[in-house]
Amino acid sequence: MSDRPHTQWERIFHPRGVAVLGATNSEGNFGHMFTQGLLSMDMERVYPVNPRGEEVLGLRAYRSLSDIPEPLDLAIIVIPREGVLDAVRECAAKGLAGVIIFTAGFGEQDERGRHVEQEMVAVGRGAGMRIIGPNCQGIYCPAGGLTVTPGLSRQSGPVGLISHSGSLTGFIARAALARGMHFSKAVSCGNECDLNAADLLEYFGDDPETKIIIGYIEGIREGRRFLDLARRIAPEKPIILWKGGITERGGRAAASHTGALAGSASTWQALTAQTGIVPVGNAEELVDTLMAFYYVPPRPCYRVVIVSGPGGPAVACTDACAQAGLEVAEISPAAKARIAEVIPAVGTSTDNPIDLGMASGRNPRWYRHVIEVLGQETGVDIFLIVGGTRPPLSRMLVDDLKCIGKPAVMVGLASLPGPSEENDFLLAQGFPIYADGHRAAAALGRLAAWARLAA
Amino acid sequence: MSDRPHTQWERIFHPRGVAVLGATNSEGNFGHMFTQGLLSMDMERVYPVNPRGEEVLGLRAYRSLSDIPEPLDLAIIVIPREGVLDAVRECAAKGLAGVIIFTAGFGEQDERGRHVEQEMVAVGRGAGMRIIGPNCQGIYCPAGGLTVTPGLSRQSGPVGLISHSGSLTGFIARAALARGMHFSKAVSCGNECDLNAADLLEYFGDDPETKIIIGYIEGIREGRRFLDLARRIAPEKPIILWKGGITERGGRAAASHTGALAGSASTWQALTAQTGIVPVGNAEELVDTLMAFYYVPPRPCYRVVIVSGPGGPAVACTDACAQAGLEVAEISPAAKARIAEVIPAVGTSTDNPIDLGMASGRNPRWYRHVIEVLGQETGVDIFLIVGGTRPPLSRMLVDDLKCIGKPAVMVGLASLPGPSEENDFLLAQGFPIYADGHRAAAALGRLAAWARLAA
Repeated sequence: MSDRPHTQWERIFHPRGVAVLGATNSEGNFGHMFTQGLLSMDMERVYPVNPRGEEVLGLRAYRSLSDIPEPLDLAIIVIPREGVLDAVRECAAKGLAGVIIFTAGFGEQDERGRHVEQEMVAVGRGAGMRIIGPNCQGIYCPAGGLTVTPGLSRQSGPVGLISHSGSLTGFIARAALARGMHFSKAVSCGNECDLNAADLLEYFGDDPETKIIIGYIEGIREGRRFLDLARRIAPEKPIILWKGGITERGGRAAASHTGALAGSASTWQALTAQTGIVPVGNAEELVDTLMAFYYVPPRPCYRVVIVSGPGGPAVACTDACAQAGLEVAEISPAAKARIAEVIPAVGTSTDNPIDLGMASGRNPRWYRHVIEVLGQETGVDIFLIVGGTRPPLSRMLVDDLKCIGKPAVMVGLASLPGPSEENDFLLAQGFPIYADGHRAAAALGRLAAWARLAA
Repeated sequence: MSDRPHTQWERIFHPRGVAVLGATNSEGNFGHMFTQGLLSMDMERVYPVNPRGEEVLGLRAYRSLSDIPEPLDLAIIVIPREGVLDAVRECAAKGLAGVIIFTAGFGEQDERGRHVEQEMVAVGRGAGMRIIGPNCQGIYCPAGGLTVTPGLSRQSGPVGLISHSGSLTGFIARAALARGMHFSKAVSCGNECDLNAADLLEYFGDDPETKIIIGYIEGIREGRRFLDLARRIAPEKPIILWKGGITERGGRAAASHTGALAGSASTWQALTAQTGIVPVGNAEELVDTLMAFYYVPPRPCYRVVIVSGPGGPAVACTDACAQAGLEVAEISPAAKARIAEVIPAVGTSTDNPIDLGMASGRNPRWYRHVIEVLGQETGVDIFLIVGGTRPPLSRMLVDDLKCIGKPAVMVGLASLPGPSEENDFLLAQGFPIYADGHRAAAALGRLAAWARLAA
């Protein structure tokens, strides 16, 4: 960390030291959870602060911030609301680069809370210190030793996450990590009294460690700036956003959640189209879409070949590809003839979707033959392999697919997930997996739409 | 079984004896699989038939159908294509009620295959014998000891399934069974040279054991009859259909799959609206929707209350409910006041969606209090509980929910499924579970739309 430039952002994401104000030994308390989280990330310079100065999780604690003799860049504030403004003042006096305020009950609560937020911002601005939150879960940055919750991976990756929901920061991170996708930084920014989604978007746009930007967004505070940034960044780095509070009732809920004013669905649709933001509608779509962007090389158009044992899922996948705007590749007569040399003539199809019939389950070499033949077709960009998550088929296919050098997506059978160890294996080899064909097709369709914009 | 009326349908679904033509000991062969399947269902009267008369899976086998001395009602034909017509003639001569033809390579293959199908139908009609298939997986009927694949449940239930895909018959059955939903009968009808989806729809309409009809349909052969039947049956028994081959390329694939002519998406949309069929677009939607119809009492309108610990998923669920045409219930000021007596004032919301805040995870009694208070609200029809799949919360909530007598749906956290044993517990107690709020809302929305039609 010492060789990193000491910009403010660097000091926040890779702090030399972190104080936890309100750190405690009582389990279930968030002051305990945040301390535990930092330790789980192997963050070595954690300084618990609590009124009695009692040791926390084996760490020496301090009665006040000013007692800490080591260099500090960041503080996490987990104390009751009444003491937060004073704590922010102490942090500013200590020369911190940033504070994360977990405590809630400010701008989202009432007028008084909004006033306190303004005072905190004034204190921060005066001292050149950024405020993250309040009412937020803070930062997950594996390389910097920071996390929003214990148990997340310490491995870094190319995904940057902006979230207006603290809990979703953790849930989305977990769902992505479970699919082998890793993060540069994930930031829960809560009420955004100071640091907001536009700031983070700008940062991620410049951050060489972040290649894909995703987010759960309720209201956008500096709307014009955010959209201008999105328009500039989106062609280079995909920005995949799930917008909450998109209905009248959802917007009302968002206002009480983070105090943000959310917009309508039609406004959001128009804005994403204008800026190149990739819109998604829910957590599943967010993770599904991220998987395509993470694992599949972008192309403005995918000529898909569907290879399936069972015929019904092959038909269904074909519908899904067509509906997602993907091209179902035309197979050359020569390739069809070569396929027909190996697979039986009855109960199968050599046309796309390639249906290998009921007996394909015990004849994995049929799949391998098709992949070998179609690997040489210039009119085929990507494979969608239905049932490809089943062992031992999956193991064999991986080698063949790597050999031909075309991307492939694995699809489970009718919502029945494959065995999880097989899923982990496929993901580690760079093949995304989807429980259902329509989800794979929808995600690839979004990737193609983005690639057309970026082209 | 002896007390059942001996109608033709009864003889097919609850046969006194089943012959497997082409039964063999070689694993991986379908003649082996079907014999094994019948044994796995505790069907006692299984008669393998093969040219050498060799014992199969410990059962005495016969060289020909005519050698079997016991009463027979059904045969499964798993022999090469060339011998199928003769086998059908033997079955007719033996006086069977029905034959299932697994063998493919008939009407879906070529003109010659279509002719053979016509001859088989003529033989069947002449003898009062129904033909299921060819190119099909046959029948799963737990009470009758029949199955399409080994390993399905022997427990009966209210779901009737019609499928134009053999593999999807098994996959859909497995996916439903994994969610605690059981079948009266599931029929894979393949090329439908004789028995078709309209016949099955009529049968399920009259069958007292079938309360919910679901299906994967490619082309509809007797279109007018099917739709007339649907119009008559749909208001009494929901008919949830997933239509394959709904795009141009998907339709082409369907033609080579089961030889059926599929229609366009817009035609299908119009037909479902006219008849009251509940349309779904993929396997996930089919299973999600079935879960709502299976577990939740139908109402033309649901005034939903969303109870959540995390705020982000609460906002997202609210959006999803509004988008699915559900009503987000208005909570009375008195109920809000009672809720506020127990849950903290900060970082929460007493308005719907009820947000119990970050600390709710360790305060399950807050959930219980909300359920108790809102159980008495006349303006609340159903609970949608976000995070309700987490133990030990789930266990506590089940008792409370049963006590208040209002239905509830459990929603996982952002696509992270709950532990599977907890899911099994909740389903066994009658509470459907969804990985994501938008899927729960969409399924409930379809149930409400059907109930409006049925009302």
